[in-house]
Amino acid sequence: MVFKAEVRVELKRGILDAEANTVQNSLQLLGFKGIGEVKTAKIFVIDVSAPTKEKAQEEVEEACKRLLANPVINNYSITIK
Amino acid sequence: MVFKAEVRVELKRGILDAEANTVQNSLQLLGFKGIGEVKTAKIFVIDVSAPTKEKAQEEVEEACKRLLANPVINNYSITIK
Repeated sequence: MVFKAEVRVELKRGILDAEANTVQNSLQLLGFKGIGEVKTAKIFVIDVSAPTKEKAQEEVEEACKRLLANPVINNYSITIK
Repeated sequence: MVFKAEVRVELKRGILDAEANTVQNSLQLLGFKGIGEVKTAKIFVIDVSAPTKEKAQEEVEEACKRLLANPVINNYSITIK
């Protein structure tokens, strides 16, 4: 079976989000007065072939640990559809 | 009122997703046999002060057009919470 896994990778609280700061400053410079704090996240949508949903979850969990998320600075969450 | 807007920016179909290709190849090199196609997306979580939800939606829509999304290569969707 092929599952569609969605991995959301975010920066942990306290880690400087340079891209978000740049976006926030740029929006304010462009005159967007209502814009406050900005945070960013990365999404990976991955097709996973696995016998069961649990096996797909395990495979993607391992992929996060080994490549997609840096445990020191990132939090990640996985949704399997 | 302060609303939390989530903007999801993706590449349009047919546009080369170099990052996704690199992730896919790396995962397969790492031995993840079940991994198929990979796509990426960018998420901006923005605090928006606005009198109503509709006004917040309008402000973020304008921010997407002017900065967050390139209409030539990106699709975007906005969720206001």
